[in-house]
Amino acid sequence: MRLVTFTAEGETRIGLLKGEGVIDLSQEAPTLPKDMLSFLEGGEEMMGEAASAASSTTHFSIDAVRLECPVLRPPKIIAIGLNYRAHAEETGAEIPEAPVVFTKQSTCASGPFDDVFRPPESDLLDYEGELAIIIGKRCRRVARNRAPDVIAGYSIMNDVSVRDWQLRGQPMSFTMGKSWDTHGPFGPAIVTADEVGDPNNLELRTWVNGDLRQDSNTNDLIFDCFELVEFLSTAFTLEPGDIITTGTPDGVAMALQPPAWLVPGDIIKVEIERLGYIENSIIQEPVEEMNS
Amino acid sequence: MRLVTFTAEGETRIGLLKGEGVIDLSQEAPTLPKDMLSFLEGGEEMMGEAASAASSTTHFSIDAVRLECPVLRPPKIIAIGLNYRAHAEETGAEIPEAPVVFTKQSTCASGPFDDVFRPPESDLLDYEGELAIIIGKRCRRVARNRAPDVIAGYSIMNDVSVRDWQLRGQPMSFTMGKSWDTHGPFGPAIVTADEVGDPNNLELRTWVNGDLRQDSNTNDLIFDCFELVEFLSTAFTLEPGDIITTGTPDGVAMALQPPAWLVPGDIIKVEIERLGYIENSIIQEPVEEMNS
Repeated sequence: MRLVTFTAEGETRIGLLKGEGVIDLSQEAPTLPKDMLSFLEGGEEMMGEAASAASSTTHFSIDAVRLECPVLRPPKIIAIGLNYRAHAEETGAEIPEAPVVFTKQSTCASGPFDDVFRPPESDLLDYEGELAIIIGKRCRRVARNRAPDVIAGYSIMNDVSVRDWQLRGQPMSFTMGKSWDTHGPFGPAIVTADEVGDPNNLELRTWVNGDLRQDSNTNDLIFDCFELVEFLSTAFTLEPGDIITTGTPDGVAMALQPPAWLVPGDIIKVEIERLGYIENSIIQEPVEEMNS
Repeated sequence: MRLVTFTAEGETRIGLLKGEGVIDLSQEAPTLPKDMLSFLEGGEEMMGEAASAASSTTHFSIDAVRLECPVLRPPKIIAIGLNYRAHAEETGAEIPEAPVVFTKQSTCASGPFDDVFRPPESDLLDYEGELAIIIGKRCRRVARNRAPDVIAGYSIMNDVSVRDWQLRGQPMSFTMGKSWDTHGPFGPAIVTADEVGDPNNLELRTWVNGDLRQDSNTNDLIFDCFELVEFLSTAFTLEPGDIITTGTPDGVAMALQPPAWLVPGDIIKVEIERLGYIENSIIQEPVEEMNS
């Protein structure tokens, strides 16, 4: 299944992507909750109900709906740094012995085709195409070989980064560079594991204005999807709707000579085999009066 | 007001601490929501309703209720490192030029008198007594002088730390050492700003088994409460219920010679002027079968 959150006729709800259309689960499985987080919390039983609706005909053409961030407000967004061998090398970092973990604030999650803001505070805006894991089960201390049991599915995230804010300070504060509002575009769907096959062997490509910038495969991950679930869940409980974004391959703007920072008008597309793509335009952030 | 979340007669709800008793807001102001997050989202109007109940007589003795984490699941817990001059010095770090920011996962939030787990994965367990800011208003780009307008109140957090997991790796991953389940005890109340006076001039003391370990004042903060709100809200939206825990003064276990790591049976008390105290016992974590 390709689970989506979509808006049509003024209402946001969950559905299934099918070809060029969307099955509206509020019509085909009306007992299911309308938001993805409650749906994921429903576990296998609700997954089963959704699956039995998957053979329905679609209710909307994909062009007639707005695809939203699949989980509108993820409980956690855990991100991994320097997790592709070639990316670690391009940044001049050593290959990490343990995953480098930081957090994107949940307020930065946004839709798969939403605009990304370049804020007035920085011009050093960068992209990072990444495979995202979506947790489907409350869990702690999950052994690597049991990790597939707690994963609801996979998706794509652009771990948009404000590099001067990220790298400022000693020790550096990833949190401040990685969580600007709109800097977590994500989707288009949560693709359940049965449709993904091996998540640790998926082609990943990122284009900026049609120019191929990242061209890699998740088989270059230093710590693969299942190792990350094991490592993170050692320390804290993972919950339905939590996102683990697994790191980016080489080819980010910062590493180009000279760096090719994103500017308003740029269009970034991230595509991952079997998961589809997300595409986001950079716009200069419209800053209003302080809203406090 | 001293806003609390408490459980009595099997039901968890919000109330007001008054002397040695608790006013049950579900009885005195029954139109208010029963959970703190919804209450805070209600803004000044709901604050006003609660205030008008503050002159009531109490419904419970404090001994007859269980005080819970004031915000059961904070949307964000943003933490600041090395934010007291003397603590930066004891760790051998330079005085930071900008706040050192990391995240505690919201799953680690726990009650003001709850047990803290020492996990089987580490013996290097430490305490950090801290002043916590609770946000009361959705906001972005809040100037320092407007910060009081977006703060609902103040509380106490023990930023419990697993030092080997915190310091592992280059760059170090604060996230992994700061977010273990039960490692964010917090409370006892959200004390509204009018009862706190100047948050940047409050005595803070931490005891382990009655032995005074931290004895400082928030006037030693390098970046004060209002500067932190300005800095963080530059990058991302702050929301009602978000917590900013402002950093710890000198006197942590790691800095003692030799280090005095917490062990099962230890009792840690953190007291802040006008806010009360939290007190937590260390117990060895009971690890069950993997619950996936």
